[in-house]
Amino acid sequence: MNDVASKVATLMEAMPYLKKYAGKVIVIKYGGNAMINEELKAAVLQDVVMLKLLGMKPVLSHGGGPGINKMLEKLDIPVQFINGLRYTSADIISVVEAVLIGQVNSELVGRINAIGGEAVGLSGISANIYKCVQRSEELGFVGDIVEVNAAPVQALLDAGYIPVVAPVGTDGNGQSFNINGDTAAGKLASALGAEKLMLLTDIEGLCNDIKIRDVISYLNIADVQGLKDQGTIAGGMIPKVDCCVQTIEEGVTNVHIIDGRKPHSILYEAFTNEGIGTTVGKDQPSVGIKWNK
Amino acid sequence: MNDVASKVATLMEAMPYLKKYAGKVIVIKYGGNAMINEELKAAVLQDVVMLKLLGMKPVLSHGGGPGINKMLEKLDIPVQFINGLRYTSADIISVVEAVLIGQVNSELVGRINAIGGEAVGLSGISANIYKCVQRSEELGFVGDIVEVNAAPVQALLDAGYIPVVAPVGTDGNGQSFNINGDTAAGKLASALGAEKLMLLTDIEGLCNDIKIRDVISYLNIADVQGLKDQGTIAGGMIPKVDCCVQTIEEGVTNVHIIDGRKPHSILYEAFTNEGIGTTVGKDQPSVGIKWNK
Amino acid sequence: MNDVASKVATLMEAMPYLKKYAGKVIVIKYGGNAMINEELKAAVLQDVVMLKLLGMKPVLSHGGGPGINKMLEKLDIPVQFINGLRYTSADIISVVEAVLIGQVNSELVGRINAIGGEAVGLSGISANIYKCVQRSEELGFVGDIVEVNAAPVQALLDAGYIPVVAPVGTDGNGQSFNINGDTAAGKLASALGAEKLMLLTDIEGLCNDIKIRDVISYLNIADVQGLKDQGTIAGGMIPKVDCCVQTIEEGVTNVHIIDGRKPHSILYEAFTNEGIGTTVGKDQPSVGIKWNK
Amino acid sequence: MNDVASKVATLMEAMPYLKKYAGKVIVIKYGGNAMINEELKAAVLQDVVMLKLLGMKPVLSHGGGPGINKMLEKLDIPVQFINGLRYTSADIISVVEAVLIGQVNSELVGRINAIGGEAVGLSGISANIYKCVQRSEELGFVGDIVEVNAAPVQALLDAGYIPVVAPVGTDGNGQSFNINGDTAAGKLASALGAEKLMLLTDIEGLCNDIKIRDVISYLNIADVQGLKDQGTIAGGMIPKVDCCVQTIEEGVTNVHIIDGRKPHSILYEAFTNEGIGTTVGKDQPSVGIKWNK
Amino acid sequence: MNDVASKVATLMEAMPYLKKYAGKVIVIKYGGNAMINEELKAAVLQDVVMLKLLGMKPVLSHGGGPGINKMLEKLDIPVQFINGLRYTSADIISVVEAVLIGQVNSELVGRINAIGGEAVGLSGISANIYKCVQRSEELGFVGDIVEVNAAPVQALLDAGYIPVVAPVGTDGNGQSFNINGDTAAGKLASALGAEKLMLLTDIEGLCNDIKIRDVISYLNIADVQGLKDQGTIAGGMIPKVDCCVQTIEEGVTNVHIIDGRKPHSILYEAFTNEGIGTTVGKDQPSVGIKWNK
Amino acid sequence: MNDVASKVATLMEAMPYLKKYAGKVIVIKYGGNAMINEELKAAVLQDVVMLKLLGMKPVLSHGGGPGINKMLEKLDIPVQFINGLRYTSADIISVVEAVLIGQVNSELVGRINAIGGEAVGLSGISANIYKCVQRSEELGFVGDIVEVNAAPVQALLDAGYIPVVAPVGTDGNGQSFNINGDTAAGKLASALGAEKLMLLTDIEGLCNDIKIRDVISYLNIADVQGLKDQGTIAGGMIPKVDCCVQTIEEGVTNVHIIDGRKPHSILYEAFTNEGIGTTVGKDQPSVGIKWNK
Repeated sequence: MNDVASKVATLMEAMPYLKKYAGKVIVIKYGGNAMINEELKAAVLQDVVMLKLLGMKPVLSHGGGPGINKMLEKLDIPVQFINGLRYTSADIISVVEAVLIGQVNSELVGRINAIGGEAVGLSGISANIYKCVQRSEELGFVGDIVEVNAAPVQALLDAGYIPVVAPVGTDGNGQSFNINGDTAAGKLASALGAEKLMLLTDIEGLCNDIKIRDVISYLNIADVQGLKDQGTIAGGMIPKVDCCVQTIEEGVTNVHIIDGRKPHSILYEAFTNEGIGTTVGKDQPSVGIKWNK
Repeated sequence: MNDVASKVATLMEAMPYLKKYAGKVIVIKYGGNAMINEELKAAVLQDVVMLKLLGMKPVLSHGGGPGINKMLEKLDIPVQFINGLRYTSADIISVVEAVLIGQVNSELVGRINAIGGEAVGLSGISANIYKCVQRSEELGFVGDIVEVNAAPVQALLDAGYIPVVAPVGTDGNGQSFNINGDTAAGKLASALGAEKLMLLTDIEGLCNDIKIRDVISYLNIADVQGLKDQGTIAGGMIPKVDCCVQTIEEGVTNVHIIDGRKPHSILYEAFTNEGIGTTVGKDQPSVGIKWNK
Repeated sequence: MNDVASKVATLMEAMPYLKKYAGKVIVIKYGGNAMINEELKAAVLQDVVMLKLLGMKPVLSHGGGPGINKMLEKLDIPVQFINGLRYTSADIISVVEAVLIGQVNSELVGRINAIGGEAVGLSGISANIYKCVQRSEELGFVGDIVEVNAAPVQALLDAGYIPVVAPVGTDGNGQSFNINGDTAAGKLASALGAEKLMLLTDIEGLCNDIKIRDVISYLNIADVQGLKDQGTIAGGMIPKVDCCVQTIEEGVTNVHIIDGRKPHSILYEAFTNEGIGTTVGKDQPSVGIKWNK
Repeated sequence: MNDVASKVATLMEAMPYLKKYAGKVIVIKYGGNAMINEELKAAVLQDVVMLKLLGMKPVLSHGGGPGINKMLEKLDIPVQFINGLRYTSADIISVVEAVLIGQVNSELVGRINAIGGEAVGLSGISANIYKCVQRSEELGFVGDIVEVNAAPVQALLDAGYIPVVAPVGTDGNGQSFNINGDTAAGKLASALGAEKLMLLTDIEGLCNDIKIRDVISYLNIADVQGLKDQGTIAGGMIPKVDCCVQTIEEGVTNVHIIDGRKPHSILYEAFTNEGIGTTVGKDQPSVGIKWNK
Repeated sequence: MNDVASKVATLMEAMPYLKKYAGKVIVIKYGGNAMINEELKAAVLQDVVMLKLLGMKPVLSHGGGPGINKMLEKLDIPVQFINGLRYTSADIISVVEAVLIGQVNSELVGRINAIGGEAVGLSGISANIYKCVQRSEELGFVGDIVEVNAAPVQALLDAGYIPVVAPVGTDGNGQSFNINGDTAAGKLASALGAEKLMLLTDIEGLCNDIKIRDVISYLNIADVQGLKDQGTIAGGMIPKVDCCVQTIEEGVTNVHIIDGRKPHSILYEAFTNEGIGTTVGKDQPSVGIKWNK
Repeated sequence: MNDVASKVATLMEAMPYLKKYAGKVIVIKYGGNAMINEELKAAVLQDVVMLKLLGMKPVLSHGGGPGINKMLEKLDIPVQFINGLRYTSADIISVVEAVLIGQVNSELVGRINAIGGEAVGLSGISANIYKCVQRSEELGFVGDIVEVNAAPVQALLDAGYIPVVAPVGTDGNGQSFNINGDTAAGKLASALGAEKLMLLTDIEGLCNDIKIRDVISYLNIADVQGLKDQGTIAGGMIPKVDCCVQTIEEGVTNVHIIDGRKPHSILYEAFTNEGIGTTVGKDQPSVGIKWNK
């Protein structure tokens, strides 16, 4: 009967979170290692289905994984860099669509359905979900989202489905664009009035010192500039944290930077008291920051 | 991280049950020891709130507990027995209403609300929920339910509340009646089209041999007569099992006879693979019966 | 055919009131003599059912009647007074629940149903309808309402029932409280956006001189302070009139102080040109006040 | 206070009828003297508004009154008879439309609105409410209703209006037809699933002996043939009773032949125990028939 | 296949207008020659049905045509003029109702239904659609609209019908009034929140010079005063243009003065790029005005 | 004004079809030449948008076009044939998904949105729209549809979108399958309760003699066997006609085999009297068949 007690304790621990998140939209940005490792992939999709069964409305917003580069290589399509950024030619955007919408999205949808969810795959082209403008001519078909039409995603949520959204944008005139996956997920979350955005990453959270992995458990966006100034937020974390800040400012209550390399980190973050990784918000004081002075 | 794994495993184990019971009405007949022991009481009410948060529609149909006898004693109201059955005088039915509706029901409602549920208390008098005829003149105000009007209970379920129903009946002309709590719960379950009725009892389930507590895990109602014939179902178990049979015949999928003396037995029955106690139904062959020959 | 003419004339006289009150919520505070006399009791409940049949949405908010004292006496529970106010011990609040919710409310519900209404009984504990704070430690479990959750009452009105509400409050943590019946009815009326509150009392209305019973037919709340100053509103009328004032200020159009000792005074007030008792409001000048100078 | 008692008694007497007819459609065929006498006219329209305020859904289906003949005369349009039936020429049907739809219907609508109802006037031409075929070439534009489209009348009922319907039919191809007012009302009643049809006539009801006015209070349609055989139903009563029979057979519960010469006979029939005139139905045995042997 | 190309081109040209006007209310004021000539009449009604089939919500607001004068003549009712305006006696308003509501409205409704629309005829008396005050005692029953109740028209639109509205007003107390057809149509359009009002007239549009028919294609209401000052808007055009201005100011996007003498001018205006006649609005600069200097 | 007449005539000709098809689901199977030629592609998509604007609910079910072979070639993936049928390896099904879902579907969606429709792209994998079983092991991932879940397509139609569906199936366990485009469109049409299925082909219709192109304008499915027997339906037409027969048998009223090589053949078929190609149905006798004897 010990086992019973422990099982029940887990369910009881989940109780306040179930109440808090009932019927709320949760957007999960799925990318990085969690898209490569088979076991992690299975766990992420189980977590998404679980959120649905527990009364939330999850939306899976995925990234690209390694598939695009593999196909570019196989097709001998040359990859060019302009000031360190990859140029997206017409051939490349076509491969991006093939891989992201045709292959990655289809696989995720198929797998969610196989474990009992009801997923419907979409790309940001449909009904101009991600309306873009070209970032610059020299980068080719790279777009910046200027408007999100969340209505078709909402319609599918209302009909009880788990929307799985591929991050491809459109200019509304038939031209597709490569877009940033984190930004797309963040903007979709705010357009849907989501309760939270979960960013699955390959780190344990935002750390004071990446070497000793001392994670900042709660980051108030008011402290972001200070952390940039002292170098705690640097390099690849800058755009990720900026995306969090914008998402919070557009009305999403919390963004969670969680470690996609640990199985079931989504469920663990959502339903246990400890949580996991870094929660970004604006309603509480930061917890765990080490200021240089 | 072991703890994480175990917590997540518990949630995962609950997944198929969550899917199966989503939006379904679950009637819990609450009585016996579980109404006396403080810890058990707390656990039962937590379980009820939990079922609600997990997407089910629980209805709590309670019994009387020891309060009626206590108050009869304090008020010096004489208790008479006719052929072993207690006679319900006008004074006694008045005490039954005072205790069941005024005290027991109010306490359960208040406690559920205290732990975050939203309970509304009702008695079977309201809108003639339990319409009765008098069983016999000599027993006084003891009624047999002839019609259940589940509409007000359904209206409260639809509005998101947890109905808590006291087992007092009415003849529709202003006279209240003492009614059997198990029968009331069973008839309410079938009138609501409930998925299941859970009977909280003071036994581990229906046993082949009560001394060694070898529980029959699944009882197909086709085997009930045989078990009565060989004496396995006997004494106080006869009306309880008869109530299960009638409830199944009126369309409820399963009735569970579970051990109310173990904390969280409701949750354990509903969301784990092992289950607990005896499940009564008509769709599977019985499991665990020992036939005398 | 004279009788026909007179019957039809009565229906015709009711016509403008039917139009005015169609679909409106009318809260009736039922207490005093009208709860003791059998004939009056029958007439009040007929009136309530009639309001429903005529297209209004009546809510019956009852008081306690003599039952609480009788049961305290029978149970030998001592009654203490603190500065003239009765102390509510744990034992006493338990008796209050037994009598008000278990007996009085049940009786009213049963009787309404017997004459063709569809009543559902509730107490202020359900879904924290009357959320209270303790008035003072020395008075024990006496509460002041700080928040009304009218949603379950509204849900029952919407489902076509006549809610009958017992005036017991809760702190939301499982502790019940004794509350003032007039205040509870007034606050429920304003929370429901009721058109009117009818207070059944044992007087003919607010009188200039109680000895000659010259009733003030319309009292604008602007004149209340003046009437208190000159002693017209005094003694037990002060809290009653204060309750009227607060109810009007919280948005109910009219409060009627009517004579519960006359049968069918509710119907008479609602559907005849003469009306009855004192109407309190803020939209018309007072009628019938005798100022001292 | 005597007056109070009598007023309240009247309202109480109406109670079971209010319950029975709540939300039911009542079609009133308005014709004869009640359309000529000013006082009667006022009373009929008050009754109709009253039915609406009391929660029913009245539909007023009027006849022509004396206006058509007056206008034919003023316009010097010759009136021809074919085997005793008036021939409806193109000129005549045009006058019928002018008077019935333009004048009579408009007046009734205007008067109902003046006393606080919300009436909307319609003719049977609108949306082919009364679809007709020509009865015979020699009678000109006289039509027999072959199909009723009650949908626009229902839409107006649903929107809370009192529909006032002029008995003019159409062939669906732009040609209007003169139709029988009683038949139109009966067919509209059955198409609407009305609870009852009230036929306002210039007699006290169906009488055994018209000279002594001994009214048959309930006529089961099974007795109609017998009454025709012995001559009790004769002359102008034959088509009227046939219309009642057909209306009952098409599903309307009761048709009432009531005396339109008595003010407020509609209200009296609907809401008093005595009723008035002859009720035609099929669910009870006839009451008051004198069989010749 | 040339024909195919041309047919398809027409449908393609209509495409943006279909998108723009989908589900929008379009009020058509139908009067003048288009009510006399048989071919024009047929074309107008076809256009109205076509608008409905193409997804708009047309409302036909008709005028009187020559019928009123004809009937006044036949009935020998004298016509009086007061300062050049016709006096409306009780006899005359009665003829107006007979002709407009009884005959003209019925004919239009019957014809629309004959070609496959579903029309319902109404007058402004119903539910006080056009509530009026008397303009002056000396003009008799001539009313000015003070309030429009578009609710019954909206209810019929919502139920899928084409409302056909006769321009007769009411004082709400049972007295009907003669009202101006253009004003009635304009006020109905604004009360319905119509997208556009189309005024069918006997001119090609508002012309700079009526002799050479140089139509002003777009008239911004800011230019109306100037055009009046230089005499371009004069005589009978003044009230018509004033009606347009008021309708625009009350929120209708465009009023179109179109030539009712050309068949299918409604359809042509609505669905082709060229349009027809004069569009009045406030969102674009005037096009085609010849200023005197 | 000639042009006006001709434009209006075209709109008038469309009138009965608009009425007939209002709100109906029309599935268009888009394939063949119409997917290659730029002008045809533009015309098809315009037609689809036009159907939507005209009040229908079009669903575009596309085929593959030449893209799959091109990409297989570029990727050097070998193509094998088994008894004349192409084997679908894991690599090939992955390319099918990339091209059909990622590229073709995205392009069609983007283009429809560019001309003012609101398209949402889907594949048959989403929510198991096309649930398949493997046809045979030797053909690899070639599936036969055993169940269609049209619910997500219906949800998008209800939300006002134009669904664009790629013909990829799933076994419900995460494995995708190559499926026949015509069959998929037919089964989707019947699952949606579509009014009609339009098959865009590279022929003028079903011909008696392909050389002289004498098209059978209406084919009753009862004549299919006879036409197969005499060789009129042969070769590649056999599966196409079989698909038509099955679609008709499953409840779709008509299937149209139309010539996708002619621009706007969809619109022409839907809205003109002549129609185009072969209509397959079961309600009328065949028209245009030449029987050998």
